[in-house]
Amino acid sequence: MEKEKFNIIVFSGDMDKVLAAFILATTSASMGMEVNMFFTFWGLNVLRKKKFTSGKNLLQKMMNFMNRSGAGRLPLSKFNLLGMGPMMMKKMMRNSRVPSIEELMKIAKGQGVKFIACTTTFAFMGFSKDDFIPEVDDYAGAATYLAMAREGKMSYFI
Amino acid sequence: MEKEKFNIIVFSGDMDKVLAAFILATTSASMGMEVNMFFTFWGLNVLRKKKFTSGKNLLQKMMNFMNRSGAGRLPLSKFNLLGMGPMMMKKMMRNSRVPSIEELMKIAKGQGVKFIACTTTFAFMGFSKDDFIPEVDDYAGAATYLAMAREGKMSYFI
Amino acid sequence: MEKEKFNIIVFSGDMDKVLAAFILATTSASMGMEVNMFFTFWGLNVLRKKKFTSGKNLLQKMMNFMNRSGAGRLPLSKFNLLGMGPMMMKKMMRNSRVPSIEELMKIAKGQGVKFIACTTTFAFMGFSKDDFIPEVDDYAGAATYLAMAREGKMSYFI
Repeated sequence: MEKEKFNIIVFSGDMDKVLAAFILATTSASMGMEVNMFFTFWGLNVLRKKKFTSGKNLLQKMMNFMNRSGAGRLPLSKFNLLGMGPMMMKKMMRNSRVPSIEELMKIAKGQGVKFIACTTTFAFMGFSKDDFIPEVDDYAGAATYLAMAREGKMSYFI
Repeated sequence: MEKEKFNIIVFSGDMDKVLAAFILATTSASMGMEVNMFFTFWGLNVLRKKKFTSGKNLLQKMMNFMNRSGAGRLPLSKFNLLGMGPMMMKKMMRNSRVPSIEELMKIAKGQGVKFIACTTTFAFMGFSKDDFIPEVDDYAGAATYLAMAREGKMSYFI
Repeated sequence: MEKEKFNIIVFSGDMDKVLAAFILATTSASMGMEVNMFFTFWGLNVLRKKKFTSGKNLLQKMMNFMNRSGAGRLPLSKFNLLGMGPMMMKKMMRNSRVPSIEELMKIAKGQGVKFIACTTTFAFMGFSKDDFIPEVDDYAGAATYLAMAREGKMSYFI
């Protein structure tokens, strides 16, 4: 029997939303669903290596300097407070033994959740494959995502 | 015949997004659908009693002091202007006889819409059941939500 | 054979999210799906003519002065920097030959994608039909949208 498919567009790069996306992904994978996560726009920051900046021209370098990379350095969608908010949130999560985003990513990979990086954003933000972590399964555009999503049971835009 | 199920994740605690969630919920309930609303993260503020703060330790108390509770005190996602924006928006809604979030919540309850509070957020934000209004139908985690959502016709992440 | 239906609620008026909505819409239309875009709240700005302000009373005029109209003048959800961010983003898109929102709207219309403006927001924001571009196909409420969405294959809240 074919598995039910669950597809998530991770548009946001905010820690709280990305956390929600990974909780949904790992929980549904543990319930036997096949899960695809399509990272686009700010969501790509989750899959980017920690680097000072990246990009092919000055404009891209400026944008990507503001737009910090790395799953461990995401801002909060509110109460960011120059980084204090995410620190507080991480401490609160640790205190309650809620896994961090990096830990959830490892769990997800172990469950076979697919990480797909959006090539459209990729292009105009000036990223190269070298900017991304090896956990990325595939680089693809909106058409590839939609072909999966239309076969799926559920899908979210986060 | 079984009713079509419509499931909404209310992640946002912003007045405008929560309003949209309740308009979708009450409209679909009036069209004969079975509606479940799963409140998580900032969305939990809708179901929290108006209190100065809550939490079990200093860190949680600090976060929950910023993170104001109560369906009548939600901020706007933009033009919040230290609370001026929500006041303007509420006045504009009243002038056009658009029901407030509190009124929509009562309508939703009367229609049998289920309010579910997410226990994962619950834990690390340091909430206790005493922090919540009696209208909450259930306290549950992501697995319970996803089991409902996979049987559903539609679902949104708001 | 009937076409698969894809329905998108465009709640956000942020350039980056609206861009994502149009990329999904035009790509799925090119894959043979029937696409409906339901613009509500800040999303209505995409369909509003460029005007200094609009509204029937002072409160509405004040809100709609802040809430700038026109698909070419949308803010970014982050790094807006008083308009610098959107300028940078547009330049980056042009450099990589990613079509602008205005261009994507034209493509979408050519593909038969339907643009629907939400009448609920319409009412309390004080808009009149005169405030909108002629590309709007229909003015309708949540019930009309949900009747379409429940027949659809996929739907997103953006």
